[in-house]
Amino acid sequence: MTTCQDDDLRLVLRGLLTTIGDKWTLVVVAALVDGAQRFTGIQRRVDGISHRMLTKTLRDLEHDGLVSREVHAEVPPRVEYALTPLGRTLLDPVDGLIRWVDEHGRTVLRNRAAH
Amino acid sequence: MTTCQDDDLRLVLRGLLTTIGDKWTLVVVAALVDGAQRFTGIQRRVDGISHRMLTKTLRDLEHDGLVSREVHAEVPPRVEYALTPLGRTLLDPVDGLIRWVDEHGRTVLRNRAAH
Repeated sequence: MTTCQDDDLRLVLRGLLTTIGDKWTLVVVAALVDGAQRFTGIQRRVDGISHRMLTKTLRDLEHDGLVSREVHAEVPPRVEYALTPLGRTLLDPVDGLIRWVDEHGRTVLRNRAAH
Repeated sequence: MTTCQDDDLRLVLRGLLTTIGDKWTLVVVAALVDGAQRFTGIQRRVDGISHRMLTKTLRDLEHDGLVSREVHAEVPPRVEYALTPLGRTLLDPVDGLIRWVDEHGRTVLRNRAAH
């Protein structure tokens, strides 16, 4: 386990983990793996996310520099979201989580169903 | 990026990702890396979590089979939480996220501060 000695950095790290680990952030990042998507395309890939929550999640990711928002000058204007180079670095750790779910997901669901 | 062809499994996977990716789950798992902890010990390590939210997070992790809850017959009873063997398998992917934050966290915070 990576540890972090510096107390300030620990606080920063914990704050970021709770952001990245936010309910929808990881699945929205994963939904952008294949390239730029329109809002409705992301919403289709991320089952169960509300319009409001996807708007908020994308805005937060944009502010963090992880997602770019491009408005194409068409009528009507086409708006596309894509991972920035920084955002793409997040794919590896996210993929680690997805592989974990792939390997252990069924066990977790069985445990959960027993309660 | 790991992909998953089976549609049912995709749904399961997505559901689990939103659970694991829940705001507090990852930081609570990380807080148990060094071994069993009492409730107050976890709360100290996970800055900003409310009593109610930590109770809920631990119960969910217990139901998923990721955390065990042991009551030691003392007066007053001592209750300790620990990662199960299944829960410990989650440390690697969580560590991947922590290393990401370690490497890119400052950039993200700088981007965020610019908004």
